[in-house]
Amino acid sequence: MEKDNKVTMVVFSGDMDKVMAAFIIATGAAASGMDVTMFFTFWGFKAIEKEGALTGKGLFGRMLGLMNRGGVSVIGPSRFNFGGMGRWMMKKMMKDKNVASLTELRDLAVELGVKMMPCQMTMDVMEIGANQLIPAVTAPVGVATMLEEANHSKAMFFI
Amino acid sequence: MEKDNKVTMVVFSGDMDKVMAAFIIATGAAASGMDVTMFFTFWGFKAIEKEGALTGKGLFGRMLGLMNRGGVSVIGPSRFNFGGMGRWMMKKMMKDKNVASLTELRDLAVELGVKMMPCQMTMDVMEIGANQLIPAVTAPVGVATMLEEANHSKAMFFI
Amino acid sequence: MEKDNKVTMVVFSGDMDKVMAAFIIATGAAASGMDVTMFFTFWGFKAIEKEGALTGKGLFGRMLGLMNRGGVSVIGPSRFNFGGMGRWMMKKMMKDKNVASLTELRDLAVELGVKMMPCQMTMDVMEIGANQLIPAVTAPVGVATMLEEANHSKAMFFI
Repeated sequence: MEKDNKVTMVVFSGDMDKVMAAFIIATGAAASGMDVTMFFTFWGFKAIEKEGALTGKGLFGRMLGLMNRGGVSVIGPSRFNFGGMGRWMMKKMMKDKNVASLTELRDLAVELGVKMMPCQMTMDVMEIGANQLIPAVTAPVGVATMLEEANHSKAMFFI
Repeated sequence: MEKDNKVTMVVFSGDMDKVMAAFIIATGAAASGMDVTMFFTFWGFKAIEKEGALTGKGLFGRMLGLMNRGGVSVIGPSRFNFGGMGRWMMKKMMKDKNVASLTELRDLAVELGVKMMPCQMTMDVMEIGANQLIPAVTAPVGVATMLEEANHSKAMFFI
Repeated sequence: MEKDNKVTMVVFSGDMDKVMAAFIIATGAAASGMDVTMFFTFWGFKAIEKEGALTGKGLFGRMLGLMNRGGVSVIGPSRFNFGGMGRWMMKKMMKDKNVASLTELRDLAVELGVKMMPCQMTMDVMEIGANQLIPAVTAPVGVATMLEEANHSKAMFFI
């Protein structure tokens, strides 16, 4: 099997800093002409949920949705969050340095043709509907599709 | 050096959600005909320790073993654990959706021939004996063996 | 594009145990004759900052520097730190077992010719100066350079 000029990323984490690292690598790779596939799973769904999306149907699904409310602009970093202070401070520092925000980075990724695949199993277990995701995502896929992408990629990341 | 039809995973984390992601990818890859090697290191040992195994010999080893008691059915997710509530809730949601439990996924991995390698250095430092691990694991190996596997693999994950 | 006999690692985490895993893999690979490139980004900078380096210029930069004081000998593990106890205990256990300390492992990596690249964007956002890093690092690079290394590598890790 030949390797394509491609990067595959599994975005498992929903932390602001890790999601940001994922989108920085993705847009950097796409800008340099590589194909990029991002597979979103578990907490990584926060990065592709619509602003303020409240997921979940059953009791547990709704509880999880509430604790883990979606939207790329409300998530905190993995360290030093202090109930939102960390998110605000990190956003301010990045703006001061002209680094793109998470929302801007994600828009750029869409423009550059980065493929964003939601994990079917996560949507089932966490009761997330397709209408709660941003329109740019592909249809939900399974782990076999992700592996197929990874097997053909020059580089891959689990974030 | 030629790439084999193989996936190599380094399982560093002992969080329920990450271990689950590792086993889902491993069984998915094995089911589609790929060779799979999992290298368990640091906290990842929780996934291959016998139920209730209490590791450690010296004072510190015993303390660490107590805080980090083994067994794939007692570990919590990396988020929203609330002293066990999160584990219970996540287990319940997965069962409702007919997703296999961690124990079932690990059994399936064994059946599918997934190779599970324990890290020798972790066993030395954390004072974990071979008799405290599930019988399906290989003899302990070093980082050179893991790298050898990774170098021949089409895809690899550090989880 | 041909693969070289090389490993590329992105060190995102600043946790003692993850940084240690990174250096153990890096020195193991270098000792067996592979080229090794480590790309330090986000919290991973703790691993290449001088002992006690206090980074940051503006208000937020200084606050972040204070909370996240650099130096490979003062960082704690991702679990069971208990305000420093975990770091001390883990150091003691490793010493008892003759496992090299983080500082020793990093020195060994330098000796073995491991290439350590600091991420330019992180230095900008977190206000980290080149003079606050250990002398062994290369000039700061962007994500494109990291991807170029990764694309030519047989194995890669995001830690």
